[in-house]
Amino acid sequence: MAIQIEKFIDEKDDVASMIEWLASFGATESNGVTRLLYSEEWMSAQHAMKAKMEKESLITYFDSVGNMFGRLEGTDSTGETILTGSHIDTVKDGGKYDGAYGVIASFLAVKRLFKAYGQPRKTIEVVSFCEEEGSRFPLTFWGSRNIKGVYGLENVKHLKDTEGISFLEAMKKSGFEPEAYMPPVRDDIDRFVEIHIEQGMVLEKNENTIGVVSHIVGQRRYTVKIIGESNHAGTTPMSYRKDAVSAAAEFISFLTKKAKGMDSDLVATVGRMDVEPNVPNVIAGEVEFSLDIRHHEEVILDRFCKEIFAAFDALAKEADMKMEISQWMDVKPVAMDREMNRLVRKIAEDKNIPYQDMISGAGHDAQVFGSFCPTCLLFVPSKDGVSHSPKEFTSVPDLERGIDVLSEILYKLAY
Amino acid sequence: MAIQIEKFIDEKDDVASMIEWLASFGATESNGVTRLLYSEEWMSAQHAMKAKMEKESLITYFDSVGNMFGRLEGTDSTGETILTGSHIDTVKDGGKYDGAYGVIASFLAVKRLFKAYGQPRKTIEVVSFCEEEGSRFPLTFWGSRNIKGVYGLENVKHLKDTEGISFLEAMKKSGFEPEAYMPPVRDDIDRFVEIHIEQGMVLEKNENTIGVVSHIVGQRRYTVKIIGESNHAGTTPMSYRKDAVSAAAEFISFLTKKAKGMDSDLVATVGRMDVEPNVPNVIAGEVEFSLDIRHHEEVILDRFCKEIFAAFDALAKEADMKMEISQWMDVKPVAMDREMNRLVRKIAEDKNIPYQDMISGAGHDAQVFGSFCPTCLLFVPSKDGVSHSPKEFTSVPDLERGIDVLSEILYKLAY
Repeated sequence: MAIQIEKFIDEKDDVASMIEWLASFGATESNGVTRLLYSEEWMSAQHAMKAKMEKESLITYFDSVGNMFGRLEGTDSTGETILTGSHIDTVKDGGKYDGAYGVIASFLAVKRLFKAYGQPRKTIEVVSFCEEEGSRFPLTFWGSRNIKGVYGLENVKHLKDTEGISFLEAMKKSGFEPEAYMPPVRDDIDRFVEIHIEQGMVLEKNENTIGVVSHIVGQRRYTVKIIGESNHAGTTPMSYRKDAVSAAAEFISFLTKKAKGMDSDLVATVGRMDVEPNVPNVIAGEVEFSLDIRHHEEVILDRFCKEIFAAFDALAKEADMKMEISQWMDVKPVAMDREMNRLVRKIAEDKNIPYQDMISGAGHDAQVFGSFCPTCLLFVPSKDGVSHSPKEFTSVPDLERGIDVLSEILYKLAY
Repeated sequence: MAIQIEKFIDEKDDVASMIEWLASFGATESNGVTRLLYSEEWMSAQHAMKAKMEKESLITYFDSVGNMFGRLEGTDSTGETILTGSHIDTVKDGGKYDGAYGVIASFLAVKRLFKAYGQPRKTIEVVSFCEEEGSRFPLTFWGSRNIKGVYGLENVKHLKDTEGISFLEAMKKSGFEPEAYMPPVRDDIDRFVEIHIEQGMVLEKNENTIGVVSHIVGQRRYTVKIIGESNHAGTTPMSYRKDAVSAAAEFISFLTKKAKGMDSDLVATVGRMDVEPNVPNVIAGEVEFSLDIRHHEEVILDRFCKEIFAAFDALAKEADMKMEISQWMDVKPVAMDREMNRLVRKIAEDKNIPYQDMISGAGHDAQVFGSFCPTCLLFVPSKDGVSHSPKEFTSVPDLERGIDVLSEILYKLAY
């Protein structure tokens, strides 16, 4: 894959133009973006952003996994770096804003700060993380977790994408030789600041422009399997049935009521449900469904899970059916930095930008950094809460106010 | 397709041997049977049965759709015929008993009666209906509905199987020329008697051998679609959701409770359920599920459907979601002949065979005849209630007792 730098550096640099420009790398027919880790589209986008940064006198470089940095050297000698940015990869046929906005906002903030105030006291680096979504290979945060030092080649050496291409093969093909892998761990990161679209409708419903994230939720995911008995829908009286769909309906009704009643920040979702044999005139013998539970306090997650699984167990016993529950995700909640959040609130107040504190219900690179260095995560509104879709949209005034607040934080931290 | 008669006529004629013998036409790897309408397996089986009947001095013939008859002429001059039999076709990888037992039992009953008592007063015909299951083409009761005169070529001329073969082409290929079609309507049928496996577990649970069917249920089938809003499972608070899975769970919980409470003969089943997009971390925007409701009284079906759809409507409104309900089946309940049933009970009592009255929750050829002539439907037990599966099983003593009762009815009706 050969990258032609020239085509990337003569675009306009207002936020709207940059969003469209970056979305052209991996543009889909439905006006969305597909930019999977180590794909040609991904590679072109990273190189394009690199060229952009170079044009603005940032010192740019890739680390050995493909995270791309644009460095604005500071005047002091502490060696500490303020890191800001987000991820360049997308889901399949995703939107133009998820991840991309954070990379662009950080770049524009640093560009504008440099133009206005010249060299900072502390070094600032803009980062375009190689991977966050987990869309091509079954792992997430490959970029940020390498920087934190919790991931290395051993975590990916057996992974393949859906076409059977191995992780290491894909990495090599896009120019990051696994043989040349050096752990890209950073010990100089003083603060991390990320701005991202909300991917929810809370800001929009409350007519706020900036979300100040206090916590990123913990997530637990499970597969629940109910094993009943498949029988003829006509010849099996109701009292003889072990109908897995009926049992699943009871479970899910209970779950929804409990989730609504326990804590307004708690969310519980059954998004996937597979019925066997899934035929109109046959009583379902098996139902398997996913369970996604999120809250920002581990103690609430513990209590909720304990209560619902006890209830599921009782319901299964009552219905004389078997139940199997397996957990396949357990991500701990992460707190963002209170001091930086105070600073953000002050900035928003001073600028008369409506803001609110909130919880992030989605995962972000900021959660990897949250237990690594003081970290701040900001949100701008998502129209109708839509994300991971070509319909993702944030208005230019909201995008600009986000960059405005981000610039101010970086100024306070680095100048 | 050329049929070699010789291979069909030198088998033993006890019921167990005949079940295995007939199951050899269309035998599957899993020890089941696939014998779809107008397939080679089906054709071989029909010709094999025909040869069997001829060997026992029955006059055999096909009608123009492939129903096959074996006629034992009676001595009286009324021209009335006692018809007895069932269907030869099966579902894909079905069992050895569904349909086949009824054909074999009728044949063995008539053979034994003739051996014991000679020529009957009234003519008896054993019938092997060409089609009942609807497994190859999307229609059912092709055989019996032609005899009743409610189906003709116009009902099938546009039908194709899953491989794109048209109904008429398949018919022609197996030797039944559509050009030679003569409506095979019968005006001479005085009584119809069918024996069939129960396909449920009622007889087994109650330790009875003979089920005397009072009614065949009416069936209504619907597709219910719930349209909510697909959103991010993490970033959408519970109070903002229009979760189609949660709504479906409420609907199904209500349905199950209502069905259990209304009438012990009523059954309601959600066997198919499809979730969109069916991803663990995305709130479902749409759920479509099937609804199969059966009872032997139209008034109960009316009341039940009215009540549940009113409740569904209220639940959808409360959840602020759209709902679409479309009905795609409406089969009326059919009563069997009370007088013949009295006769069957008397026979079972005299023979000390445990029996019970029951409702048929499944459809059978007897339901087509029920509104055509006095009709009687008998059941023998199905092990564990299993049917439409290679695991279908009925013990030889139960099969034999069924033939015993059937012979006695035919004797009472025809001798």
